[in-house]
Amino acid sequence: MTIIDTPEAMRAWSFEQRALGKTIGLVPTMGALHEGHASLMRAASRGNDLAVLSIFVNPTQFAPHEDFNQYPRTFDADSRIAEATGASVIYAPRASTMYPERYSTYVIVEDVSQGLCGGSRPHFFRGVATVVTKLFNAVLPHRAYFGQKDAQQCAVIKRMTRDLDMDIEIVEMPIVREPDGLAMSSRNAYLSAEERARALCLSRSLFEARESIEAGERDAHTLVAQVRAGMADVQVDYVELVDGETMQPLERIAGTVLVAIAAWAGKTRLIDNIKFEV
Amino acid sequence: MTIIDTPEAMRAWSFEQRALGKTIGLVPTMGALHEGHASLMRAASRGNDLAVLSIFVNPTQFAPHEDFNQYPRTFDADSRIAEATGASVIYAPRASTMYPERYSTYVIVEDVSQGLCGGSRPHFFRGVATVVTKLFNAVLPHRAYFGQKDAQQCAVIKRMTRDLDMDIEIVEMPIVREPDGLAMSSRNAYLSAEERARALCLSRSLFEARESIEAGERDAHTLVAQVRAGMADVQVDYVELVDGETMQPLERIAGTVLVAIAAWAGKTRLIDNIKFEV
Repeated sequence: MTIIDTPEAMRAWSFEQRALGKTIGLVPTMGALHEGHASLMRAASRGNDLAVLSIFVNPTQFAPHEDFNQYPRTFDADSRIAEATGASVIYAPRASTMYPERYSTYVIVEDVSQGLCGGSRPHFFRGVATVVTKLFNAVLPHRAYFGQKDAQQCAVIKRMTRDLDMDIEIVEMPIVREPDGLAMSSRNAYLSAEERARALCLSRSLFEARESIEAGERDAHTLVAQVRAGMADVQVDYVELVDGETMQPLERIAGTVLVAIAAWAGKTRLIDNIKFEV
Repeated sequence: MTIIDTPEAMRAWSFEQRALGKTIGLVPTMGALHEGHASLMRAASRGNDLAVLSIFVNPTQFAPHEDFNQYPRTFDADSRIAEATGASVIYAPRASTMYPERYSTYVIVEDVSQGLCGGSRPHFFRGVATVVTKLFNAVLPHRAYFGQKDAQQCAVIKRMTRDLDMDIEIVEMPIVREPDGLAMSSRNAYLSAEERARALCLSRSLFEARESIEAGERDAHTLVAQVRAGMADVQVDYVELVDGETMQPLERIAGTVLVAIAAWAGKTRLIDNIKFEV
């Protein structure tokens, strides 16, 4: 397994592999890998001749008051997971390489970036779309793998890829959960035991919402109220019921439905969602 | 010479040529080709195994009050010029292909897009950066050729290419002028004989500015005032003396200096510039 830290070297590797007819799968991450990331890596290894893991804690997707500095950095452990899940390359560029002096270009995705996390974190998706474009241009993958836990991010990246005529298939993989239901997240490491217990109400509320829909509930307002009521143990950021592709709010539950929630357990912001066809 | 109208077909052609080891030069245009475009095409043909001319009148770089609808469309004449200058492909996508329903992704270049044309035409460079990204992703060129007449556009595209880790060399070619000095432009076709005569003061003022600098003038304000004074026959939009790379205003004339001007002759907006090392 090779570690590469510049776009030029990364591209040289990818051109070489493409010239040999190899397909490349990319899993873009900020490191601090957990089983969710590992599931993406295994899918990338299975679905392509070669898999690349990128690790880059991207400063442009954090607001000044957010957790950029304390975000967990666990490169050695991440390398072992990369190796075990079949990575050929870890692409880990430096911030000064990614954002040199006078850096000034950003990719913005309107529409699908509005609301949900785009409402709470106004610069977040601009940072994500920009860094993913840069990673795509360096790694030149045939397919890129993202987790459904970041459902709006998946929608943003799919829209961006279509709109900018990028020749990359975006593969969205299911949420991986702890045995008790908590969605895996690098930020779960921030939680105290007590916060960890309270955080369980996120997934529990979503599972209850699914049961209500399966039992026939079709009114979005009723469902949102029900999910909110189930989240009394945490501070709710948002509870939204939206179209799974456009991220536009739904009144009636029909089509591809996404129930997306964000909440604070202490100082840690957590997100979760369920998505299904009605 | 082949005419291609979808990004998928364009990419298929480019992948095939790249697999054969061929290099590709792209000249992005809005058609209505003149000798300036032809000089770019000849450079692209000379500098690469294959040259692609793109023709697309890009709606997102026009404001609602601007000349999108009346912009000259001269496809048959353009095709003949393309053929004569060595084009292998004309890439001419439709607007509905480029901007499908729910299109929402834009590339913005801050800093270097400010001021000059970015001041007069606030959405212009966002439209240009976006469409050029899309053309790059479809044509996958090794080199792309732009005219120095659009000096700020060149600076924006160079910055964007660097920032987004695009593996494309941006080649800036000199301004091509009519025998009497007027910079070639597709918009010159809008000028009446009387406006055409008045428009000559743009290039004349720039040539006088160059003479002043060669004679030792180093104060930017003096020079800007001199250029403005020479442009009494037209309605000045801006006269700026800036760093040729960053587009930041200069006080003293030193380094790579760009004198850039824009003005209205009747209803037609014209731009011109001179660039030199001091």
